[in-house]
Amino acid sequence: MQERIRVGVIGIGAMGMGIAKCLRAKGYAVSVRDVRPEAEHEAASLGMTVCETPARMAAQVDALIVVVLNAQQIDDVLFGDQGVAQGIAEAVVESAAQPGTRRTVLLCSTIAPEDSVRFAERLAQTGIDCLDAPISGGPAKAEAGTMSMMLAGSAVTLDRCEQLLADMSGRRFRISEKVGDGARTKLVNNLLAGTNLVAGAEALALGIKLGLDPKRLFDVICASSGSSWIFEDRMARALENDYAPRAFAHILTKDMTLATGMADSAGYDTPLGDAALGIYRETLERGWADLDDAAVLKTFLKRRGKEQEG
Amino acid sequence: MQERIRVGVIGIGAMGMGIAKCLRAKGYAVSVRDVRPEAEHEAASLGMTVCETPARMAAQVDALIVVVLNAQQIDDVLFGDQGVAQGIAEAVVESAAQPGTRRTVLLCSTIAPEDSVRFAERLAQTGIDCLDAPISGGPAKAEAGTMSMMLAGSAVTLDRCEQLLADMSGRRFRISEKVGDGARTKLVNNLLAGTNLVAGAEALALGIKLGLDPKRLFDVICASSGSSWIFEDRMARALENDYAPRAFAHILTKDMTLATGMADSAGYDTPLGDAALGIYRETLERGWADLDDAAVLKTFLKRRGKEQEG
Repeated sequence: MQERIRVGVIGIGAMGMGIAKCLRAKGYAVSVRDVRPEAEHEAASLGMTVCETPARMAAQVDALIVVVLNAQQIDDVLFGDQGVAQGIAEAVVESAAQPGTRRTVLLCSTIAPEDSVRFAERLAQTGIDCLDAPISGGPAKAEAGTMSMMLAGSAVTLDRCEQLLADMSGRRFRISEKVGDGARTKLVNNLLAGTNLVAGAEALALGIKLGLDPKRLFDVICASSGSSWIFEDRMARALENDYAPRAFAHILTKDMTLATGMADSAGYDTPLGDAALGIYRETLERGWADLDDAAVLKTFLKRRGKEQEG
Repeated sequence: MQERIRVGVIGIGAMGMGIAKCLRAKGYAVSVRDVRPEAEHEAASLGMTVCETPARMAAQVDALIVVVLNAQQIDDVLFGDQGVAQGIAEAVVESAAQPGTRRTVLLCSTIAPEDSVRFAERLAQTGIDCLDAPISGGPAKAEAGTMSMMLAGSAVTLDRCEQLLADMSGRRFRISEKVGDGARTKLVNNLLAGTNLVAGAEALALGIKLGLDPKRLFDVICASSGSSWIFEDRMARALENDYAPRAFAHILTKDMTLATGMADSAGYDTPLGDAALGIYRETLERGWADLDDAAVLKTFLKRRGKEQEG
């Protein structure tokens, strides 16, 4: 059997745990790190190595898969006290690191492109390669190794990681060699998914307001020109009044904020994205941040018409 | 061979001609009427009977399929001079109409629900049954007999027309027995399709603005959570710079205007639909009314960002 590279997963929430389980099941030696002890206990029970700090993990693995929530958390685990950079520096001093070994950080969180670029530049100064590698598909696909990845980084680094990437994902898009383009692609996709979801909720709630049968209307739309992937996925469970979170409302709100901010920085106007973001913010204000993002339907059902406002 | 009911199609534009060709190919005796002589010539060359007026057609057929552009045109063909109602009244006087024959008007245009209701009520006074029967799927499916229909009307009338409806369409949704619910369902679907299209154009143009490769981005989105039926259909040709009209930009603008007006009348707020309608209006203002509705992408590519405006 070919010797596999040693991998570490930092941030074993729904997606990170799925990736860790997938790679463990495929025979990789998997190290993990999370701020929540219960997640680390679960990982240990599955034969993974729990590392006390990102620094310790960094000295022991070849590839570091970072799947934490946001750029601030990435900054902390990479460059904070007991972070990855510190761990590598110490390992080099202690000669624990094999000479010639190239370590790679895979940035899998959904973050702003300027953050991907900033992290990659700073990692390069420490001799660490970086892939801008956002993921898509949800926890079940992560665990099955069938999620999608949007990859940006040098061809050399991408080629070196090809086997690992193939083991993690069902579909890989090589976006470009420019770190940041993975994040840009992911945010554009999520902007559209988030907007399609709000548009679907707006239309469905309108039909309900007009007295149409919700499930019949849903079936008609799914078979007609109004259909979208996220409409079918989310509204099916919303119509069962099932708002248990597969994808938290606050996550898509964060993604929409990043995406509209990215557009703003480029001097580009996103009127639909802005309107959709307004509905996510209203959903959070109503206290539904930890419900599924399908809860935007509840927001429309609660809203009153223009004429009744103010 | 079972004797088929005699059908007339008023309005042989792209959809109406598709329906007429489909029924003719299936052996129906088909009468047609259009304001454009070239459309009538084409129909005649295909073995259809051209009627000089809706009144003459009304006396000769059992089912009248109305596929004109808007409510004003329906009003004219049904109740105007030499219209359907006048034709029926004269036929009854002349005993040309067989006693006991029930005539049915199928309203297939996309119109406001209150117009469907108004037309059905007025037709009932003339002894004519009415189905609120919007259609979906485009000219190719109309001609193949595989389009969808959203049907509302009395069960008796629906049952009587079942064979004709089955010959016209691949999928039939019986929405309710209440005329108007077909129009409501169609407008809700088109509101969502129209909004998804603008959202897709907004996202794709953002990616282009950010320097991403347009076709690669399109492929990623089609395989990811941002995908929608209309995004895949329209943006595929927009990226080939092909704006030849399969669906005119002005038609979807009309549908969006009707849909947001319907919501407004119900005291319901549609922030995304309103934002999308703004983009359609801008597209028309740019002189692209007769291009394909995919031209909303051109509008986003032409738009400048907020910071550069004013």
